[in-house]
Amino acid sequence: MRIIVLGFGNVAQPFVKILCEREKELSGNFGLKPRVVAVVDRGGAIVSSSGLNFTRILEAKKLGKSVAADTKLGRPRTTGMEIIEEVEADVVVEATPTNIVDGEPGLSFIKAALKKKRNVIATNKGPLAIALPSLMELARYNGVCLRFSGTVGGGTPLLDLGKKCLLGDKIQSIKGILNGTTNYILARMTEARVQMDDALKEAQAAGYAEADPTYDVKGIDSACKLVILANWLMDRRITIKDVNISGITEVTLNEIVKAEEEKAAIKLIASINGGEASVSPRLLPKNHPLCVGGTLNAVTFTTEFAGEITLVGHGAGGVQTAGAVLRDLIDIKRELSL
Amino acid sequence: MRIIVLGFGNVAQPFVKILCEREKELSGNFGLKPRVVAVVDRGGAIVSSSGLNFTRILEAKKLGKSVAADTKLGRPRTTGMEIIEEVEADVVVEATPTNIVDGEPGLSFIKAALKKKRNVIATNKGPLAIALPSLMELARYNGVCLRFSGTVGGGTPLLDLGKKCLLGDKIQSIKGILNGTTNYILARMTEARVQMDDALKEAQAAGYAEADPTYDVKGIDSACKLVILANWLMDRRITIKDVNISGITEVTLNEIVKAEEEKAAIKLIASINGGEASVSPRLLPKNHPLCVGGTLNAVTFTTEFAGEITLVGHGAGGVQTAGAVLRDLIDIKRELSL
Repeated sequence: MRIIVLGFGNVAQPFVKILCEREKELSGNFGLKPRVVAVVDRGGAIVSSSGLNFTRILEAKKLGKSVAADTKLGRPRTTGMEIIEEVEADVVVEATPTNIVDGEPGLSFIKAALKKKRNVIATNKGPLAIALPSLMELARYNGVCLRFSGTVGGGTPLLDLGKKCLLGDKIQSIKGILNGTTNYILARMTEARVQMDDALKEAQAAGYAEADPTYDVKGIDSACKLVILANWLMDRRITIKDVNISGITEVTLNEIVKAEEEKAAIKLIASINGGEASVSPRLLPKNHPLCVGGTLNAVTFTTEFAGEITLVGHGAGGVQTAGAVLRDLIDIKRELSL
Repeated sequence: MRIIVLGFGNVAQPFVKILCEREKELSGNFGLKPRVVAVVDRGGAIVSSSGLNFTRILEAKKLGKSVAADTKLGRPRTTGMEIIEEVEADVVVEATPTNIVDGEPGLSFIKAALKKKRNVIATNKGPLAIALPSLMELARYNGVCLRFSGTVGGGTPLLDLGKKCLLGDKIQSIKGILNGTTNYILARMTEARVQMDDALKEAQAAGYAEADPTYDVKGIDSACKLVILANWLMDRRITIKDVNISGITEVTLNEIVKAEEEKAAIKLIASINGGEASVSPRLLPKNHPLCVGGTLNAVTFTTEFAGEITLVGHGAGGVQTAGAVLRDLIDIKRELSL
């Protein structure tokens, strides 16, 4: 299986490492023989149709060099689009940074790859939040797979649980905590009785929040993930424009303390049922399984037969998300063998 | 798909009802056309090679009659073993009551069905706890499927999560609350500061505990489920004899109050890692996702890539477990179509 990797950051790097380390098991257990034939980063590309050896590439990356700096195989200034057009491959892993304004450059990469009948694994939720219904349609039209397990819940298999483990059942509603940063901020306000600004600074110091935390605190990140859950698991063809979003910026320490007194907590909840898709701070009973602390993510599926089931796990992390990309790859391999 | 149902109680009855109600969707979505050709209960059997109509049968059941009382198709005193030998079928659903001493009659039924190359769906954990490694081997040898999703977690897809959603990852350890009755008793002792005897009586009054609660409070039920998890998800070929079991009978209200003061709770935890499989009351931090209340079940899988993920849900219930049997049926249909 020939793989192109677009974007070579904290998910793609552990991903190629895992492919090397697990070579034997992947071949033995799944008949999967992955070969990464091209990697693109900001500086350009590195290409080898016989498969890249990553020992040297990862070392160069550690020193801050582009993959294109390789004297033998590097191609400085070559773009992702050029690689998609020129390099033969079975799967394109789209792992460029998230852009929620226009989804670029990921959106164009995914479209181009699908049109060239490449299977696509996305770890970048921007293009999906903006255009998932049409991207799913494009994949179907071209007879290829589009997978994106790592975009929701990091390594926690929230999408797979809903898709693979509830066959014959019906998901009636989904609600969840889909953003670890805001959950950490609200949890710290609760535990330490600090104002939101201070909790945010703590989150930034601990590496849980970006320098610009807008996407998180405004609820945008949660809304992107809700769009993906709704399309993938409930056949709701919505985009981020269809989500009613309010973030945590208006939540006061006073409200949090009051909630505590009522054995409840204020959490940023993303939810969808038959009707509206929304993201907003809501009261949750402390003893509800969804009421998790720290940077955890959790989603409750309400189904016709199984009732309420809740999956909890880490919502982010490079290795975790790389594991999700690997799951998608195995899934695609199985689909192709059918 | 021709189905034999052995045992016609609170799981099998909703199961056949679901098959009728979902006929169209099962055919459309999964190409599944189930036809129940025989049902056996304590009084005998009812058989029809063209498929049974359940409207009348379920009404008779409500009145306390055996399925064998049907004047046209009933066969009083016919046994499950006779039906397995005589009736042509693709799948046998084994839903007789759990017996942990020798696994009978379920164990003989499952063996006979596998030997006749019937796929088997078990909802009865007794035979599995006693002989799962050899039953899995027998199924493999005869080229048929043995599934048992409903035996652990009721409708909560604990087995499926581990099997289908962690491809390429490695489960390093499993720990969980696998018995709702004991969880309810411990939770009531915590909340209401009552002694165990009183909490048990409450559980019995609420219908959460049997008149004879031995299997639950001694940890036997949890151990059965741990055996199933270990075999299915960790390739550990153990039976209940290999589990170190201590129940909740020695837990005192005093210990529970002391745990509370340390922001922890005493829970009956079943666990397996590289080494020992055990069931015992253990301290759990209150804020751990596994620390669920009421009759809930919860399992934490620790995996190499995804880290700790926890699935929480109802651990029992007729409709819930019937939904799990349906999942198994769809799974078997897919396996057979490959």
